[in-house]
Amino acid sequence: MAASNLHDDLIVFDGLNVSDWTPAVFEDMRRGGVTAVNCTCSVWEDFRDTMRNIARWKTWFGEHADLLTQVYSTADIARAKKEGKTGIVLGFQNISAFEDQIGYVGLFKELGVGIAQLAYNTQNFVGSGCYESVDSGLSDFGREIVAEMNRVGMLCDLSHVGSTTSRDTILASTKPVCYSHCLPAALKAHPRNKSDEDLRFIVEHGGFIGVTMFPPFLAKGVDSTVDDYIAAIDYVVNLAGEDNVGIGTDFTQGHTTEFFEWITHDKGNARKLTEFGDIINPQGIRTIGEFPNITSAMDRAGWPESKIRKIMGENWLRVLGEVWDTE
Amino acid sequence: MAASNLHDDLIVFDGLNVSDWTPAVFEDMRRGGVTAVNCTCSVWEDFRDTMRNIARWKTWFGEHADLLTQVYSTADIARAKKEGKTGIVLGFQNISAFEDQIGYVGLFKELGVGIAQLAYNTQNFVGSGCYESVDSGLSDFGREIVAEMNRVGMLCDLSHVGSTTSRDTILASTKPVCYSHCLPAALKAHPRNKSDEDLRFIVEHGGFIGVTMFPPFLAKGVDSTVDDYIAAIDYVVNLAGEDNVGIGTDFTQGHTTEFFEWITHDKGNARKLTEFGDIINPQGIRTIGEFPNITSAMDRAGWPESKIRKIMGENWLRVLGEVWDTE
Repeated sequence: MAASNLHDDLIVFDGLNVSDWTPAVFEDMRRGGVTAVNCTCSVWEDFRDTMRNIARWKTWFGEHADLLTQVYSTADIARAKKEGKTGIVLGFQNISAFEDQIGYVGLFKELGVGIAQLAYNTQNFVGSGCYESVDSGLSDFGREIVAEMNRVGMLCDLSHVGSTTSRDTILASTKPVCYSHCLPAALKAHPRNKSDEDLRFIVEHGGFIGVTMFPPFLAKGVDSTVDDYIAAIDYVVNLAGEDNVGIGTDFTQGHTTEFFEWITHDKGNARKLTEFGDIINPQGIRTIGEFPNITSAMDRAGWPESKIRKIMGENWLRVLGEVWDTE
Repeated sequence: MAASNLHDDLIVFDGLNVSDWTPAVFEDMRRGGVTAVNCTCSVWEDFRDTMRNIARWKTWFGEHADLLTQVYSTADIARAKKEGKTGIVLGFQNISAFEDQIGYVGLFKELGVGIAQLAYNTQNFVGSGCYESVDSGLSDFGREIVAEMNRVGMLCDLSHVGSTTSRDTILASTKPVCYSHCLPAALKAHPRNKSDEDLRFIVEHGGFIGVTMFPPFLAKGVDSTVDDYIAAIDYVVNLAGEDNVGIGTDFTQGHTTEFFEWITHDKGNARKLTEFGDIINPQGIRTIGEFPNITSAMDRAGWPESKIRKIMGENWLRVLGEVWDTE
């Protein structure tokens, strides 16, 4: 199939999008042919504010039913493809919303939260983030949380989690876990990037890697192109195998300085953790609507169709099914 | 069918139970052959505490899966009957849990809250309770809440709601509403009992009446028997027709003084609204496990089997279907 037609035929899954949610973004996801996407609805928010965010998403599902459909299962992703809509997986980048209540995990799962990152950059009740000075690993409460996430079928995301906590979680979890959006430290040293050892470790234990294109973590930064992104994906594929890798863009479309200040301070208001500089996505994939250019770039890089299909979404679909659809 | 066998064959729906939820109560509901029941999980609690109560119910559904099953639809009630379990409809006796967020209504509905009373005894954002000095009717925000409850399919309960707010709600709602647990004022004058006019008004507008046996509201108080309860039901049936009436016991099994102090003070902690005295349910139906005695007493009163079937549960099933199962 020609690359231009191929994209329309694909299941396209984006493992992480944290845009400023507006009708313009929802329309751009359709323009980009995104079949389904993990949409962040909590970063630093507590239980109540996260529930309000989810209530807002439910309103959007009603108001933009021509563009969006909520995803609870992989069958819903197949349905989204069939109906020409973008399936929304509600996701957390932190588990501040769980507060100190294991019982909240199941409530969020029932409302459609299918993926949750165990920590965002810093230490919390369950473990440590990748910017924390000392990572003492998964806490005892964290083990309870992982067990509950396993039980209800919520995917553990470790992208912003510290290396020790990540390894502990990979070993503790009875279901696959993931880095939904990361890049290899071998291409650029950065606290958010993962060592070859860490990338190998997760897939050797049944886990999954989504590759991001967030410019501060790419070797060429804001001068990167979509082809650099494909090369980074290929680096991970060579380490992890072409069945265990997918897309996780980390689009932040529409956000202003205020948002980046909020996410780069611990808990949104404490010390500054990192300075991103300008956020300009790789040339060719600056906006969500340009998603077909990823498929074209894979084709240009000589990828066979089967590999493109897997990396663009089929792999994600399999791992989500392993976590969500089995009891 | 003989009354002794008939009870086992019935769909038995209890429109209100606010017991102290323990395994002993769950077992007693099975002993009583209760097919499904509206279980109060919020009275004065706010959003967060109500969510914690619901999380606790979800734990119980797991721990007592041999006795209980959660009800989201009337099909779940039929399934409960088939599986010999008690179906649990989560219900509110107040909408304090909605706080000031219309979006919370849908979240609770998705988690299984199928019935919510608009006010508990006193005034709140949406209207007034039956103990409030002045009932100025359904507020403008209340009209938004009723519309949202209609949209998501959550039954409006008016048992503890003031007369004016009740009438406004009956007229505003596009779906049937109910008094889930009330008694006729004609048999005993009491702020919680409903006038003949109010009982007629709700059914003339497609609504429904569950009849309670809570002793402070019965003419003979703690000296009542199950036969007095049947007589009270018959009074309502004569007014409302045998298709529009059901059971709503208001069992408070296992609760101590602390609970009754909490529910009889406005917001759980403000002025005292009423004094119940001793709570001793009618002889013959002192405990949930004695539920078959209701069927026997109906038979003793000469009710035909078809009427028993309707009042014991079939009527409730129809009205719940009209609210829940249609979009």
